[in-house]
Amino acid sequence: MRVRNKPWAKELIEKHPEYVVTDPEAFKGRWQERFEQKQPLHIEVGSGKGRFIVGMAKAHPENNYIAIELERNVLVSILEKQIDAQLPNLQILHVHGDSLMNYFTEGEVALIYLNFSDPWPKARHAKRRLTHKTFLEIYEAILAPGGEIHFKTDNRGLFEYSLVSFSEYGMRLKQVWLDLHISDYEGNIMTEYEEKFSSKGQPIYRLEAMFSNK
Amino acid sequence: MRVRNKPWAKELIEKHPEYVVTDPEAFKGRWQERFEQKQPLHIEVGSGKGRFIVGMAKAHPENNYIAIELERNVLVSILEKQIDAQLPNLQILHVHGDSLMNYFTEGEVALIYLNFSDPWPKARHAKRRLTHKTFLEIYEAILAPGGEIHFKTDNRGLFEYSLVSFSEYGMRLKQVWLDLHISDYEGNIMTEYEEKFSSKGQPIYRLEAMFSNK
Ligand SMILES: C[S@@+](CC[C@H](N)C(=O)[O-])C[C@H]1O[C@@H](n2cnc3c(N)ncnc32)[C@H](O)[C@@H]1O
Ligand SMILES: C[S@@+](CC[C@H](N)C(=O)[O-])C[C@H]1O[C@@H](n2cnc3c(N)ncnc32)[C@H](O)[C@@H]1O
Repeated sequence: MRVRNKPWAKELIEKHPEYVVTDPEAFKGRWQERFEQKQPLHIEVGSGKGRFIVGMAKAHPENNYIAIELERNVLVSILEKQIDAQLPNLQILHVHGDSLMNYFTEGEVALIYLNFSDPWPKARHAKRRLTHKTFLEIYEAILAPGGEIHFKTDNRGLFEYSLVSFSEYGMRLKQVWLDLHISDYEGNIMTEYEEKFSSKGQPIYRLEAMFSNK
Repeated sequence: MRVRNKPWAKELIEKHPEYVVTDPEAFKGRWQERFEQKQPLHIEVGSGKGRFIVGMAKAHPENNYIAIELERNVLVSILEKQIDAQLPNLQILHVHGDSLMNYFTEGEVALIYLNFSDPWPKARHAKRRLTHKTFLEIYEAILAPGGEIHFKTDNRGLFEYSLVSFSEYGMRLKQVWLDLHISDYEGNIMTEYEEKFSSKGQPIYRLEAMFSNK
């Protein structure tokens, strides 16, 4: 994603420590304290501009949500939405997905969303894909028993890769959609990328998976 | 598939016991005797008119092939192709896929092809799908260690179902293609149905899977 530099982003983020956590390590194992209510914790890795997670937090007051995004100039758009919405069940985390173990304790997370993750199409970059084995190990560690991964993308290569990666890891597929928008799946909340790519007529792929030993 | 009745089919089949096995139970565990050479045995369940399996047998003289088809009026088209081609590595079996254990002994088969299997879209017919658990049990029994299932279809619902069914059974996906004809997969041999549906612009799905404990 080519991102415009937003010189004012840093300042706006620093002005809102109630939404963008400044010392995420400190909340490892204690995330529920950041929310009004103790309820299942769902996180999204690579939230982009946040339309999905803000929409989910609005639609599902019965869950707590954390948006995770590493690009400050993108993350600030999630913050802007949250300044408007003031959702008591949404927090924002400015960290890298490869160090989630530093911020979440074992079993702290009930559900992980991956939406339109960067495809890294070159084989030599496979390790950077958010569905690579090294990430699956992290997700397995922080997910609670029965915890799930919900993944959607328009990128055929990434979806093909991910099906095999999950399978090789011994994960179970709960359900798969090969053209989400013409399926009977209800309650879909579109991400910014989903809007963009599905309007070009590309099918959206989706899956729900879980770790077998969890 | 709506099939035209061919009154002459029965007679033609009976005239060619060298190609269409008349007493399949008798060859359980001894299929290699039906071929010129002892080499890996690949079977296709639901061969239809046989373009795929005849093409494979021609392209791969290093394997033995058995076409399995339950409809006599369809099977006769495989026979006609074989009468022309006289391939020493192709046999035809007029049986139902749900009784393969009667015809193959444990581990006798190296690879099972399923191509454009009937989708049985109604949930109450799920048991008839060739990728239903009850069929997977049969495939697992007759496949050799490391044996694989190669499945392709244009039917999105069947492919979605099958990914989940294989996964729930504990099988491993080796590779998945979500648009076979624009992928770099080489050596694809089209089936009759594949020709028909891909010419309408539908993507062809394909996967290779194996049983984890085999
Ligand atoms: C292609 S965008 C998709 C954004 C959004 N999910 C959507 O569907 O519109 C991927 C986003 O993930 C972020 N990202 C990529 N790798 C990440 C990582 N390891 N940890 C956190 N964020 C990441 C990128 O900065 C980018 O904003
Ligand atoms: C939709 S057609 C596809 C034929 C061929 N594979 C192709 O791709 O052109 C499915 C075929 O499978 C056969 N079939 C369906 N269930 C079967 C079973 N349980 N055992 C053997 N053949 C079966 C049908 O008679 C039909 O010819």
